[in-house]
Amino acid sequence: MHVADAPHLRVLRLLRDEGPVSRAELGDRLELTRPRLLAEVERLVAAGLIAEAGMAASRGGRRSTLVELDPRLRFAAVDLGASSIDIEVTNGRLEPVATYRETADIRSGPRTILQRVNELLHKARTDGAYEKLDAVGIGVPGPVSFRDGVPVSPPIMPGWDRYPVRELLAREHGCPAVVDNDVNIMAIGERHGGVAHSVDDFLFVKIGTGIGCGIHLGGTVYRGVDGCAGDIGHIQVDANGPVCSCGNTGCLEALFSGSALARDAIAAARSGESPALAERLAAALAAEESREDRGDDEREPVISITARDVADGAAEGDVTCIRLIREGGRRVGGVLATLVSFSNPSMIVIGGGLALLGHVLLAEIRSVVYRRSLPLATGNLPVVLSELGSRAGVTGAAVLASDTAFEQAS
Amino acid sequence: MHVADAPHLRVLRLLRDEGPVSRAELGDRLELTRPRLLAEVERLVAAGLIAEAGMAASRGGRRSTLVELDPRLRFAAVDLGASSIDIEVTNGRLEPVATYRETADIRSGPRTILQRVNELLHKARTDGAYEKLDAVGIGVPGPVSFRDGVPVSPPIMPGWDRYPVRELLAREHGCPAVVDNDVNIMAIGERHGGVAHSVDDFLFVKIGTGIGCGIHLGGTVYRGVDGCAGDIGHIQVDANGPVCSCGNTGCLEALFSGSALARDAIAAARSGESPALAERLAAALAAEESREDRGDDEREPVISITARDVADGAAEGDVTCIRLIREGGRRVGGVLATLVSFSNPSMIVIGGGLALLGHVLLAEIRSVVYRRSLPLATGNLPVVLSELGSRAGVTGAAVLASDTAFEQAS
Repeated sequence: MHVADAPHLRVLRLLRDEGPVSRAELGDRLELTRPRLLAEVERLVAAGLIAEAGMAASRGGRRSTLVELDPRLRFAAVDLGASSIDIEVTNGRLEPVATYRETADIRSGPRTILQRVNELLHKARTDGAYEKLDAVGIGVPGPVSFRDGVPVSPPIMPGWDRYPVRELLAREHGCPAVVDNDVNIMAIGERHGGVAHSVDDFLFVKIGTGIGCGIHLGGTVYRGVDGCAGDIGHIQVDANGPVCSCGNTGCLEALFSGSALARDAIAAARSGESPALAERLAAALAAEESREDRGDDEREPVISITARDVADGAAEGDVTCIRLIREGGRRVGGVLATLVSFSNPSMIVIGGGLALLGHVLLAEIRSVVYRRSLPLATGNLPVVLSELGSRAGVTGAAVLASDTAFEQAS
Repeated sequence: MHVADAPHLRVLRLLRDEGPVSRAELGDRLELTRPRLLAEVERLVAAGLIAEAGMAASRGGRRSTLVELDPRLRFAAVDLGASSIDIEVTNGRLEPVATYRETADIRSGPRTILQRVNELLHKARTDGAYEKLDAVGIGVPGPVSFRDGVPVSPPIMPGWDRYPVRELLAREHGCPAVVDNDVNIMAIGERHGGVAHSVDDFLFVKIGTGIGCGIHLGGTVYRGVDGCAGDIGHIQVDANGPVCSCGNTGCLEALFSGSALARDAIAAARSGESPALAERLAAALAAEESREDRGDDEREPVISITARDVADGAAEGDVTCIRLIREGGRRVGGVLATLVSFSNPSMIVIGGGLALLGHVLLAEIRSVVYRRSLPLATGNLPVVLSELGSRAGVTGAAVLASDTAFEQAS
């Protein structure tokens, strides 16, 4: 049996999600008696979490004072990808006041990556984004023990296993910190400010370099016993399929993911099967040669054909590009049909880099899910694209950071 | 955020699960202050839920009075299968005081079946099993809206869609009633008194006439948005497989389930591929003929070869019987590997009629799950057989009934 959250949490979350509210409305909305509410507000003002914000418009009687989250509240939201660092410093309402994005290889190890995160956050302070952080939330591309605040056996993150990420960030910035899996924070972000707004039971499927699934059940993220729930990229979908980076054959992400799609697209370009891709590959190689001629050594690794090229080729009507997207959608749809029969969610959100493949991908996923799952489970099941796109992760990290700060204020 | 259950619920559940306890121990165990505990106990005695039960052994100081659930408490637990009615009337500790089991075709419709349930329960009263029921719990073989207490579009239960099962039982017996899916109650039963005792996150896989999965997450049953979570029998495992009763091809339960196994076993007997099964089929047909000769018309439908025969054949070393079991285990294992990667549970329990295939089945399921799921998710994952067997369902129905009665006592 679940009991409602503590009053201070409900006050803080309402002000975070809806902005300034009068004391009178706050009492009504949260069904708190006036003395109880006033005591909570007084305590939260003293704790530096909320502040007065002028008078509300009259509701007929005496005008009520508006309260809002303290304007000095600041949360740091960090989204580590396989090859990127995304940071937002936000105010109490989770609006970004500073944004940083750069490439970084997660395989450089935790010291290098976290040092760079700290440098960027200290730069944000120098830039005037904050005086003091109230909490840091960070997402990493691998399984996490949420309770311990450490990555656990993350396959693509050598050196990070049980590295004390939460503890080091908390110590460095003198505030609470919280660590979660990157797909979980994307799901949380999409629920806070995206297409899954206020949906309690949904799956967020990230199709990027790899494939993962954030599971939101009964209003909270379900992380599993070892923190690896939702790790659907290595589900076997074809016993005769290609060998996966994990060593098994025919895993979902060996058949469809950013890297699998690039592999298949390059093959289709080389064989001449796809004129659109052949043209793009030729252009990419020419650019690469002129770059080498100029002697540019320090450059990012070149991926000669990307999902963007396949999407553009499909938009131009290139049959092979359309086929690659549809085959991928069919693979993802087959796994999702299974997960829908199993978990009976009320929405599926498709996000990550390959969401740019858009409605060709979505149509194929929908077609398989609707045909192969239980009719009862798909009767009212929307399958939709992420609204937040690349901001889903930092948004979710900011939500987690604020929740952590609010919980510790009790 | 979850807050602990109300004190009265914790008192009642502890007495249900552990028997008489002294007031002093109760206060210690539930971390309730003495005045708070005494007030709860007094209230629950007045409500007729608990009673005094003599003096406890001395703990050094003054002897404390034992309290126990009122000995007159009675719960009715009903497990409806596709072709059976199982009923237990239990005392407060969920020990059976009366048991009834008979065949009945769920397709006879809700009026006929519920009338028979009511007749059996009234017979139990006449037999002296109870004076008054405190709650009725019932499981049905199909999806259920737990909130509304009605079956929802149940495929094998014509006439039951949204039939007011909970309301009619509650009215008939003058007590609260609760309706759930049959696999969910088996999972609840196994967690109360079986192999999953006190395990919070586990999957209970029932392999019987069909296949279903009870999902226990974070200590409670997860039922999904439409009440059909865990309906894994119609997951497609072979696009070229046999046509299923649902109209799709290659569903898990079209390849392996009680009916699929009987179909394959009869084929292997007829073709002579399996001497052990051919022998059993001949014996079954001879028995059938002599029965017809005697003119026995009113008889149960004869299933000439059953899972029991296949299990016996395998025990005798019949290669085809072993192959049938192993192929089935491989199919189930493949689906479970997917569900383990997705949900990262801490245990998998195999139950239902086909659990009698025992360790040959279990070994094959384990082999596939351990090979194909994420290593992190299978590191500490036991895959085990149900301990309660055919009593899992009524046990879980009794747990649900008692929880419902206890919750309404607030």
